[in-house]
Amino acid sequence: MTVHNLLVEDGSTLVERVMQAIRKRIAGRSLAPGAKLPSIRSFAETMQVSKSTVVEAYDRLSAEGIIQSRRGAGFYVAGHPIPLSLAEIGPRLDRAVDPLWVSRQSLEAGDHVLKPGCGWLPASWMPDAGIRRALRTLARADQAMLTDYGTPLGLPPLRQLLSRRLAAHGIEAPAGQIMLTESGTQAIDLICRFLLEPGDTVLVDDPCYFNFHAMLRAHRAKVVGVPYTPNGPDIDLFAQALTEHRPRLYITNSAIHNPTGATLSPVTAHRLLKLADLHDLTIIEDDIFADFEREPAPRLAAFDGLQRVIHIGSFSKTLSASVRCGFVAARGDWIDGLADLKIATTFGGAPFSAELVLGMLRDGSYRKHLDGLRERLARAMGETTLRLKALGLTPWIEPRAGMMLWCSLPEGLDAAEIAKRALADNVVLAPGNAFSLSQSAKGFLRFNVSQCQDARVFSVLAKAMG
Amino acid sequence: MTVHNLLVEDGSTLVERVMQAIRKRIAGRSLAPGAKLPSIRSFAETMQVSKSTVVEAYDRLSAEGIIQSRRGAGFYVAGHPIPLSLAEIGPRLDRAVDPLWVSRQSLEAGDHVLKPGCGWLPASWMPDAGIRRALRTLARADQAMLTDYGTPLGLPPLRQLLSRRLAAHGIEAPAGQIMLTESGTQAIDLICRFLLEPGDTVLVDDPCYFNFHAMLRAHRAKVVGVPYTPNGPDIDLFAQALTEHRPRLYITNSAIHNPTGATLSPVTAHRLLKLADLHDLTIIEDDIFADFEREPAPRLAAFDGLQRVIHIGSFSKTLSASVRCGFVAARGDWIDGLADLKIATTFGGAPFSAELVLGMLRDGSYRKHLDGLRERLARAMGETTLRLKALGLTPWIEPRAGMMLWCSLPEGLDAAEIAKRALADNVVLAPGNAFSLSQSAKGFLRFNVSQCQDARVFSVLAKAMG
Repeated sequence: MTVHNLLVEDGSTLVERVMQAIRKRIAGRSLAPGAKLPSIRSFAETMQVSKSTVVEAYDRLSAEGIIQSRRGAGFYVAGHPIPLSLAEIGPRLDRAVDPLWVSRQSLEAGDHVLKPGCGWLPASWMPDAGIRRALRTLARADQAMLTDYGTPLGLPPLRQLLSRRLAAHGIEAPAGQIMLTESGTQAIDLICRFLLEPGDTVLVDDPCYFNFHAMLRAHRAKVVGVPYTPNGPDIDLFAQALTEHRPRLYITNSAIHNPTGATLSPVTAHRLLKLADLHDLTIIEDDIFADFEREPAPRLAAFDGLQRVIHIGSFSKTLSASVRCGFVAARGDWIDGLADLKIATTFGGAPFSAELVLGMLRDGSYRKHLDGLRERLARAMGETTLRLKALGLTPWIEPRAGMMLWCSLPEGLDAAEIAKRALADNVVLAPGNAFSLSQSAKGFLRFNVSQCQDARVFSVLAKAMG
Repeated sequence: MTVHNLLVEDGSTLVERVMQAIRKRIAGRSLAPGAKLPSIRSFAETMQVSKSTVVEAYDRLSAEGIIQSRRGAGFYVAGHPIPLSLAEIGPRLDRAVDPLWVSRQSLEAGDHVLKPGCGWLPASWMPDAGIRRALRTLARADQAMLTDYGTPLGLPPLRQLLSRRLAAHGIEAPAGQIMLTESGTQAIDLICRFLLEPGDTVLVDDPCYFNFHAMLRAHRAKVVGVPYTPNGPDIDLFAQALTEHRPRLYITNSAIHNPTGATLSPVTAHRLLKLADLHDLTIIEDDIFADFEREPAPRLAAFDGLQRVIHIGSFSKTLSASVRCGFVAARGDWIDGLADLKIATTFGGAPFSAELVLGMLRDGSYRKHLDGLRERLARAMGETTLRLKALGLTPWIEPRAGMMLWCSLPEGLDAAEIAKRALADNVVLAPGNAFSLSQSAKGFLRFNVSQCQDARVFSVLAKAMG
């Protein structure tokens, strides 16, 4: 009896001692996030304990989330973001450069990977002080806000604040015509579900944000691309596409186009809307880069008055991509239908994220953050342009604002091949054809200038270009 | 010039004075959350200012989210949750009792409305201390966690913790076979998109969670109902449905069935899975009420080993419905496809909510919270049963656990009519046919015993039964 107790006591002490030793190494960074832990055998020797004791200790540390076991690959120190999925799925060098290629590569990449091909800012460029303030405030919020489902349209004060922000872009959208979603992407997805029948035709820009292809595929839509010019879609070919394909929907960005960084010109906007009226076309205007804008550009939703244009926004690019919150502004009757669909497919809203975003938008420091961000992006745009030109790449245009720079490679080079080679050197690039329905952007790469601060981006690129 | 400045100065002072007066009334509760503000005219007289000054003041207070304007209905004091949507859309007495009827009524109802028909616990029953602790911890988290997109599968330490929790139910699911979603509902929606073609047939229980009907409608699926017995679906009719309709999918709850509160028996589970093998049927097991369970019930996913069963969970019922986080455990190859679909339709995950849930699950107080919750629910179940029996209602079964009580009305009474009458008295009931594909539950109501603490529920019900 006593003996048994002693054994248990002794056993648990040993396990705890091993756990402490690992915790110390992690705290002292001798084991950094993502680092592999010593093998069971070697650490058992180091600690002068049985292997089963180390197994038990590693197991408990895994349960605490301090380390992670990867099947067949041992134990690793946890950290954010963790390249676990990458390890689980394996670097997807094999995977075809389909519309999801860039998404998976960038989302699954760990700290050690450079991501000039991704579509967001480095964490260090984001306003974390504001987020922390908003969190501390939230910790004192009404219990109902912390625990209840949200109303279908979402937090009213945030919708009213958004209504005022939209007004600043000339878009008249009362709070009752704005619905919060879990992301801008989810907003577009809900609209597609609301408006599209399988087999319906949808127009997209060529090139366009690659995820539109993946999403429309999920909706079984027939997708037709219209060549994009520095002022918007080629209006003659757009008119032709309307006559030929009778599309139900057109999805685009106005102020800052992804991937080209171009801006819709007022005359193109006007012609576009006249054609839309003529052919009873509905337009989704995805305006997620709005806050990067330096001079006001025309918005389709402003000209159209939310009759046939549906306006989308999100806070992933300038506030936080971790706090999921987007919104849709549309005709009142459509918003009601979208709310039903939102309930059916995700049930309640997320008052929690909405409250956080509201807190951050109200935080006086947000405006300052944006001003600094625009300057910083402008500088990065200039520097990156020079460094890419030095490597023989040619920017398609000089974007007015934002993070995207669309560049053509020297004659004869294949962006997909270069991207695969760069990935082997832990650099995620965005090859042009991931954005192009017609696969006519083989010679282009999209660069995110905010993710091009590390010289290794350019050395790896040069090497990959051979 | 001076005059002009004076005017401006004076104007802004007046506006500020009016704003202060309103703020004082709100602070002093002479204007409570949800209360209507004085009309522009009357308050202009009260304050001895011009109407335009009051308009400006109300406008600014709206911008601050302190009050809200409702088109055509004046201004109201904000609060959480706010019956704004209800006011915007009007109490939907007119709306048919379709699958979304109960959802909209409960989600849109304000503080003044009692919700014995809703599917969640009162805020006061939720573990807000744990949430607040988790929030304060999060305010000190890595910046990347606060601002970056999540990996496609979601926060690894949470997936590992879930893997261990599932093991406790006999379900073997390594972290790599678990994907986090924004809710249990979103998880089911993704699976339907992944597995269903428009026109495919899906089996559901009759009665079943009403939202399954709404969701499957969104997927253009052909829905077939199988009568549900106190031990699970009627196995003979289930077999018949498989032969007749060749369904692709069956969606159900095992441990605690919604709306009946019944539990799947081991023998029914075994027969169900044999039939599923025979007809190559995939099963979604929605286990969101798992933590309410008092004695362990069989899980289809445990018997089947995640071959043809997909297991769904969420934290909305026992932690927070405001922090959106659910998960799906399935075959590895399916998880990979689901991850692509998740990226295409919502892009990144929400590491933020995942980190919060992880913090709360790790919080030692969660277990205690659950023990207390189960006791409290058991008591509420007993009390509610007695009070409903006293009104002539008859529970279909005595549920083993959970919040749901499925009751039949006295002969000849129509639940939908009673629900509409009760709604006029600000009580949201859940009429049986909202759950029944065959519309054969006209004489049933679903009660959430945790929302039946207020005697008014029973007086209004008695009156509505007239």
